[in-house]
Amino acid sequence: MRGLMMDYPLVLPAIVRRVETLFPNRKVVSRRPDRTICRVTYRQVVDRVRRLAVALQDLGVKPGDRVATLAWASQEHLEAYLAIPSLGGVLHTLNLRLHPDDLSYIVNDAADRVLLIDESLLPVYEKFRDKVNVEHVIVIGPAKDGHYDTPDLLNYDELLAASDPSRYVEPSFDENTAAAMCYTSGTTGRPKGVLYSHRAVILHSFGQGLVDMLGIGERDTVMPIVPMFHVNAWGLPFTATLFGAGQVFPGTHLDAKSVLELLVRERVTVTAGVPTVWLGVLNELDQHPGEYDLSALRTILIGGSAAPPAMIRGYKERHGLDIVHAWGMTEMTPLGTLCNLPSSLREAPADEQFRYRSKQGTPSPFVEIRARTEDGHAPWDGVTMGELEVRGPWVAAQYYNVNGSDDRFTADGWFRTGDIVTIDPTGCIELTDRAKDLVKSGGEWISSVALETALMGHPCVAEAAVVAVPHPKWDERPLAVVVLKPGSNATKDDLIAFLAPQFAKWWLPDAIEFAREIPRTSVGKFKKSVLRDQYRDRYKQSSADL
Amino acid sequence: MRGLMMDYPLVLPAIVRRVETLFPNRKVVSRRPDRTICRVTYRQVVDRVRRLAVALQDLGVKPGDRVATLAWASQEHLEAYLAIPSLGGVLHTLNLRLHPDDLSYIVNDAADRVLLIDESLLPVYEKFRDKVNVEHVIVIGPAKDGHYDTPDLLNYDELLAASDPSRYVEPSFDENTAAAMCYTSGTTGRPKGVLYSHRAVILHSFGQGLVDMLGIGERDTVMPIVPMFHVNAWGLPFTATLFGAGQVFPGTHLDAKSVLELLVRERVTVTAGVPTVWLGVLNELDQHPGEYDLSALRTILIGGSAAPPAMIRGYKERHGLDIVHAWGMTEMTPLGTLCNLPSSLREAPADEQFRYRSKQGTPSPFVEIRARTEDGHAPWDGVTMGELEVRGPWVAAQYYNVNGSDDRFTADGWFRTGDIVTIDPTGCIELTDRAKDLVKSGGEWISSVALETALMGHPCVAEAAVVAVPHPKWDERPLAVVVLKPGSNATKDDLIAFLAPQFAKWWLPDAIEFAREIPRTSVGKFKKSVLRDQYRDRYKQSSADL
Repeated sequence: MRGLMMDYPLVLPAIVRRVETLFPNRKVVSRRPDRTICRVTYRQVVDRVRRLAVALQDLGVKPGDRVATLAWASQEHLEAYLAIPSLGGVLHTLNLRLHPDDLSYIVNDAADRVLLIDESLLPVYEKFRDKVNVEHVIVIGPAKDGHYDTPDLLNYDELLAASDPSRYVEPSFDENTAAAMCYTSGTTGRPKGVLYSHRAVILHSFGQGLVDMLGIGERDTVMPIVPMFHVNAWGLPFTATLFGAGQVFPGTHLDAKSVLELLVRERVTVTAGVPTVWLGVLNELDQHPGEYDLSALRTILIGGSAAPPAMIRGYKERHGLDIVHAWGMTEMTPLGTLCNLPSSLREAPADEQFRYRSKQGTPSPFVEIRARTEDGHAPWDGVTMGELEVRGPWVAAQYYNVNGSDDRFTADGWFRTGDIVTIDPTGCIELTDRAKDLVKSGGEWISSVALETALMGHPCVAEAAVVAVPHPKWDERPLAVVVLKPGSNATKDDLIAFLAPQFAKWWLPDAIEFAREIPRTSVGKFKKSVLRDQYRDRYKQSSADL
Repeated sequence: MRGLMMDYPLVLPAIVRRVETLFPNRKVVSRRPDRTICRVTYRQVVDRVRRLAVALQDLGVKPGDRVATLAWASQEHLEAYLAIPSLGGVLHTLNLRLHPDDLSYIVNDAADRVLLIDESLLPVYEKFRDKVNVEHVIVIGPAKDGHYDTPDLLNYDELLAASDPSRYVEPSFDENTAAAMCYTSGTTGRPKGVLYSHRAVILHSFGQGLVDMLGIGERDTVMPIVPMFHVNAWGLPFTATLFGAGQVFPGTHLDAKSVLELLVRERVTVTAGVPTVWLGVLNELDQHPGEYDLSALRTILIGGSAAPPAMIRGYKERHGLDIVHAWGMTEMTPLGTLCNLPSSLREAPADEQFRYRSKQGTPSPFVEIRARTEDGHAPWDGVTMGELEVRGPWVAAQYYNVNGSDDRFTADGWFRTGDIVTIDPTGCIELTDRAKDLVKSGGEWISSVALETALMGHPCVAEAAVVAVPHPKWDERPLAVVVLKPGSNATKDDLIAFLAPQFAKWWLPDAIEFAREIPRTSVGKFKKSVLRDQYRDRYKQSSADL
């Protein structure tokens, strides 16, 4: 039976055709490892996308097959983003910061048939190649001295040069077909794969074009600092392609100075990354006032972890730049909420605006939220904490290769995020913790995130992480691990005195440890499990003194 | 089998829940026939939507049933927009300007079970009630003298007061289910019904929220002047609800002064209508410079017919207001293209910008366009004319109740719009004519639209329509029918001299007729068939003289 409307699936090949016909001359810019800048047009990119799709098909890649990438941000990585789903394959971005054992586990679990890899990352591949069964490895970038050390490698550019783009035939498939996959970077247990359908990726990109979300459009130039292996750079390369925005890929140089140089030079309008990156950039800006012309930059998207309020304020007050806080999950393609100032706060005092901007925002259209408490769901009062649950068309319904029931999904079809939040009356969430990082003291919850983002507002503090340590009477108590800025000095008492006016007395950390750095996960989040392991025993022994 | 992502259909009940939870306090404003202003919140609207859904179910309305409206723009009409699809029914908006014979044909063709009607429109219903089989008629607005002249009528407010919103149960249905329907206002043949799926309406609304389209968001206040029976007021009430924008419904007073008063008073940011309305408003603004504070207004959306370039320029140069030109069809939910200035023209000279803004724009994401010529498809050169064909997820695949093949759909699945356009290298279309209105002179095409929008740029001309009249040598030649502004004077020679520098000599009308008005269709477009009939014979007889 013919449907009411045309059967027009929401699939990625349609955005490739769209950018080719409507925005052929917009630029895609890559910074190479040697810091040279490579500029191409979407017309050129699309030609190469078709060449890559044909070449992969000639190598035997069939619809549904996984093709992995192990690569920094570049034009070639964008080509893989578009070419693999264009032949019905599944783009699988590998996290190059993972341990070789994790990489081999993931490649085997996904059964990746082909690997696209940066030349500079061949040493990483060397460490796990014996443990995996990848049929073809294609190297992006020329071999030094004319040959690769690893045998049997194909060269990306040679493959494309030999491929005939006119042989590309757009396959016909359902929008619920898998387009991409990522693995969770869980700090506990084995990584789990999440498949994203074409429909999910497209609707997610639509979301990012909405004026109340990121409002990405043709006039923008988008540079994700978040790596392309971190949940598809939060979907930004797909979104920018759909709407014909310019794209800038920063490659391997991700220090603050290099990031700033590229933001200035390419007149980037939207950039995105985890808080650590932006703490470093703010520091560089503070040290060189007026040196960087960021007048084109309209949005710095921050996600992955909560951004310290002091940093949000610093960008705005000292540099006139807006931080937009977001929250998402690997299981959510990944964007869930975004914190734009609602119209009711446009004229509000600066303090109230900053208070709002330090939250993680309201749900995207068609993402639904609720916070589960022990006896139901939390009221939207901005105070009651509960575990955030979500549903929506770009939320995963299952993990790859995981059979049977999974306790991450509720009986009524919501995804349990593992994040503890409050929801205020406007529907704005505030992340208080990962469920496993909450400090449960005397039956009450203490937010480690609130304490550490407050500590990072102290002028001497570079970074701070708060973890629970065992306590005989209160069960758990907060311990702060603090990294001071170089040349700075602050005592435990200074920091506690700084926190005291901001929190209830029983929230204040019992102890503060000073450290040289805080261990991080492969995507730049604090690795609190390591801190807990490190300090648990010490505080268990001395807990009687607390 | 469980899908990759959650099975979360794109259906209208989800936007009702969304606006209730996220934007409960945003306002919906209606101007009543007595010019009083009624303000309610979305929280109140949603309560009434549920009451209406329950009341309709109690009257026997079942999923799939058509419920008709015959009403001006009002809060109650919005409630019907949301309530009928919320119970799985089909919202069918009747065009109150149609002839009673057409109305009875349409009501019978759609098999409408219930009719919601404004009290002021009961006389219209009286004229066709004997020819239709509507089971229940619900009157919006109190009866004069306490009773209606027509028997067996239900009162809208009483029905809602007696209904229990807590009995509303959100039905579960596929996103391809019909949510609404409209009939084409074709000037020839019987009107044909078009059904819109929930998916089509939602994706269309997503499109209107994109920054490169209308960018409608929470901060906006939207007032459609286009009637709610004209392709669902171009989808704006759905879009505004989805994004939590304020809404203003102008009711029955649609003269220029009344429109302006409401734009000013409610600080409307986005408004929309056909060119005639905006010609009148421009005239009123010109006559009363500085009297209307339109500083909140950011977009005047114009569609339905081509807007004269002189009007677009007049709004911008004399009043600082941006006209955004759009093009769509009843068969397209209805938006197809929108003309925002691309970033490459941001710094262009004003003339170049106006030239671009007088076109109908580039296709919305996921709307695809091509222009068919006799021997293939027109190149995107901005010159070659062809019949516009479209496809996309919100383009109809069939007409309601029309069996068998339909020549409006091509063999490869595109919709033939019947509009003649050029497409420029940026993908921007320019409407040159309806296929049937083209003037075919000596084997070449002359655009009646180009001639008439140019004529309307003459200071003495209020309106102009150009039609083809028969010619023995050239087959057809253009005739202009012109309405002069009150008190203005211009001769045929004046007007031809005005056109001469803008067109090739053979494009210039052979004759100009002065008239008191130009006949219009029920949605405000020029009814050229009437003009052709009126002048054809006269020019046939005298054609030897031309």
